[in-house]
Amino acid sequence: MIDLEQLHDCYVTTSSKIVLLVVDGLGGLPHPDTGRSELETANLPNLDAMARESACGVTTPVLPGVAPGSGPGHLALFGYDPLKYIIGRGALEALGIDVELRSGDVAARGNFCTVDGDGNLVDRRAGRIPTEFSAPLCKRLDTIELPGVQLDVFPVQDYRFVLRLRGEGLSEAITETDPQITGVPALPVKSLDAAAEKTAALINDFVAQAGNLLAEEERGNMVLLRGWAQLPSLPPMGQIYRINPAGIAAYPMYRGLATVANMRIIPTGHTFSDEVDTLHEEFENHDFFFIHYKPADAAGEDGDFEAKVQALEDLDPLIPRIRELNPDVFMVAGDHSTPAIMAAHSWHPVPFMLHSKLNRGEGVPGFDERACNTGSIGSIPATYVMLLAMSHAGKLTKYGP
Amino acid sequence: MIDLEQLHDCYVTTSSKIVLLVVDGLGGLPHPDTGRSELETANLPNLDAMARESACGVTTPVLPGVAPGSGPGHLALFGYDPLKYIIGRGALEALGIDVELRSGDVAARGNFCTVDGDGNLVDRRAGRIPTEFSAPLCKRLDTIELPGVQLDVFPVQDYRFVLRLRGEGLSEAITETDPQITGVPALPVKSLDAAAEKTAALINDFVAQAGNLLAEEERGNMVLLRGWAQLPSLPPMGQIYRINPAGIAAYPMYRGLATVANMRIIPTGHTFSDEVDTLHEEFENHDFFFIHYKPADAAGEDGDFEAKVQALEDLDPLIPRIRELNPDVFMVAGDHSTPAIMAAHSWHPVPFMLHSKLNRGEGVPGFDERACNTGSIGSIPATYVMLLAMSHAGKLTKYGP
Repeated sequence: MIDLEQLHDCYVTTSSKIVLLVVDGLGGLPHPDTGRSELETANLPNLDAMARESACGVTTPVLPGVAPGSGPGHLALFGYDPLKYIIGRGALEALGIDVELRSGDVAARGNFCTVDGDGNLVDRRAGRIPTEFSAPLCKRLDTIELPGVQLDVFPVQDYRFVLRLRGEGLSEAITETDPQITGVPALPVKSLDAAAEKTAALINDFVAQAGNLLAEEERGNMVLLRGWAQLPSLPPMGQIYRINPAGIAAYPMYRGLATVANMRIIPTGHTFSDEVDTLHEEFENHDFFFIHYKPADAAGEDGDFEAKVQALEDLDPLIPRIRELNPDVFMVAGDHSTPAIMAAHSWHPVPFMLHSKLNRGEGVPGFDERACNTGSIGSIPATYVMLLAMSHAGKLTKYGP
Repeated sequence: MIDLEQLHDCYVTTSSKIVLLVVDGLGGLPHPDTGRSELETANLPNLDAMARESACGVTTPVLPGVAPGSGPGHLALFGYDPLKYIIGRGALEALGIDVELRSGDVAARGNFCTVDGDGNLVDRRAGRIPTEFSAPLCKRLDTIELPGVQLDVFPVQDYRFVLRLRGEGLSEAITETDPQITGVPALPVKSLDAAAEKTAALINDFVAQAGNLLAEEERGNMVLLRGWAQLPSLPPMGQIYRINPAGIAAYPMYRGLATVANMRIIPTGHTFSDEVDTLHEEFENHDFFFIHYKPADAAGEDGDFEAKVQALEDLDPLIPRIRELNPDVFMVAGDHSTPAIMAAHSWHPVPFMLHSKLNRGEGVPGFDERACNTGSIGSIPATYVMLLAMSHAGKLTKYGP
């Protein structure tokens, strides 16, 4: 893993290039009618051909049986122990809407809610008011001033927003205000340790002011705050591995996760094809690229087997456009499985392949769950993917004499 | 791993015999012309027959993606965590020329070098002077006396030597004198902690005296010292496993590594056939034998695919001579892969087979990387090999009631 101190002297900087393509929610499960998974159903001539020339395996994002969110799924692939470095809900929500988070900032996920005349909760989601109603309310909250800290409120979608505090001596160690039931008032924020008392007082001040500002609203007349989070302090990927890493992702959350690992984010367009164009344009400027493909996960989460098959088939023709760059190491990985039949992230091991000149012909017949499971890499924790990449690229030298 | 305290009470002494054959650099990669690895290319009727009757798998010496040196590769097979127990360069260099190292000794790798009139380095390797020139210089350095410690200088090859200090209160926590560039003087030794100040002063004294003794030489008129190392303090293998282990190796470095694990070294000849003779002669005297086969690694390091194939074919006829001893457990393992196409140690998982009466027919069709990858043992850390051996030999009983 990235913080394995014994290996620090083994990393060397070279001109070789590594591309890590993360296909979000890559792994799947067989369709009950056919017995074939999404990958086994899709027509993937380019991925299959690459698998035949690659070393293949399956990766476990966190531990066998543990389904990860996007945060741990990506951190593991970047080499960070996902049980040690945790990105809280508020921070991930902020990253997901391109809100910049700096070390020390505290972020929360906010809901507009509805309370009655006694202050008791009637609707924890304010009737799911649409963004067009909630965005002006966010602007109003954004005018609140707290002593000594900068406060910003960002609309997310419908009744959801992000609250970000920036200043000295803030802490995420405070309780949530959402009681999770109706008929009772929102909870006051309490500090969980002495160092968090100041933050707790600031937030209670914010909630009181918000109540005043929203009092006349019919539905969103109060706020609930939860998922208090600061960014974990990760050792920078570039510094540990002695690489110059870049991230290319059309979706803000994945740019945010790359930022957490201290990659440089390269601006790109809205499609994966745009991302591949960006990779071509910037290929000379970095030696490590993380490039993210979202649609497979989105279709899986929707429980739409055919859409996930289609998403994989849409990806396939773009594989040769990456391969024509001749990266020394080209890996296709997933942050987790998202089987369409589950309509959710799952714990199932994720297919993985690594193409390099040190693996010729070692691979398996196709790129799917069953085939990869028989590959020469075997079943490994996702946190070891970077070690493999570094060695195959000649950037990780022999350990011990 | 060997120091898994929870298992200490599970080890029992029995008369059963374990033989661990380490084929150095065993694993390989496919030849680009044929798509077949060294093991897949070689004609190995005896190893293949044994694989069919064995439990097979692949071992990872340190971590996926980490290529180990000989030290970590062997320590792992002996059951020691190679990330915890580290044999430094100086110690390994000493073991490699049969120099005895005791607990507390400090060893360094030395180079003769050439400096100009101002003491600046002109050639860090003294024009690679041959051993016939450097050996007398080593004798001269060996006359140096330091207060309170015993000092010995041993020629290695060409410009290289080993310096060994023996005495009370020595420490490896000192800096190297090699600045790694020319045009500057050698660096003085500095202590890295307070306990190492005495050692640093002694070494600076040695370097000053060496400079005087060598001043008239044309090429080797100074020394550089690096890789300061003391032996790690390993729990003795015999004590932990309650066995009486012996090592048989024609090459000194592997005898040295067996010594580090506290095996008894049995003197043997210069070939693997001699080693097998020794095994026959001593078979009644121990219940665990480590026996080492070097030529596969040497050929792999030379990048000579055909020579590695030949080295494996040379080994094969000797397998029946080991099997005729009817050891209860006979394992064929490798300390790491040394693919000829890389001409270097690599991180690729290493084929492994374990023959015992508890495995008949569990195995795979042949002894090579792909076949072993499908075996019943699967892909395991090399540190677990000893646990398997002990259980198959009836020396590791049930854990927990």
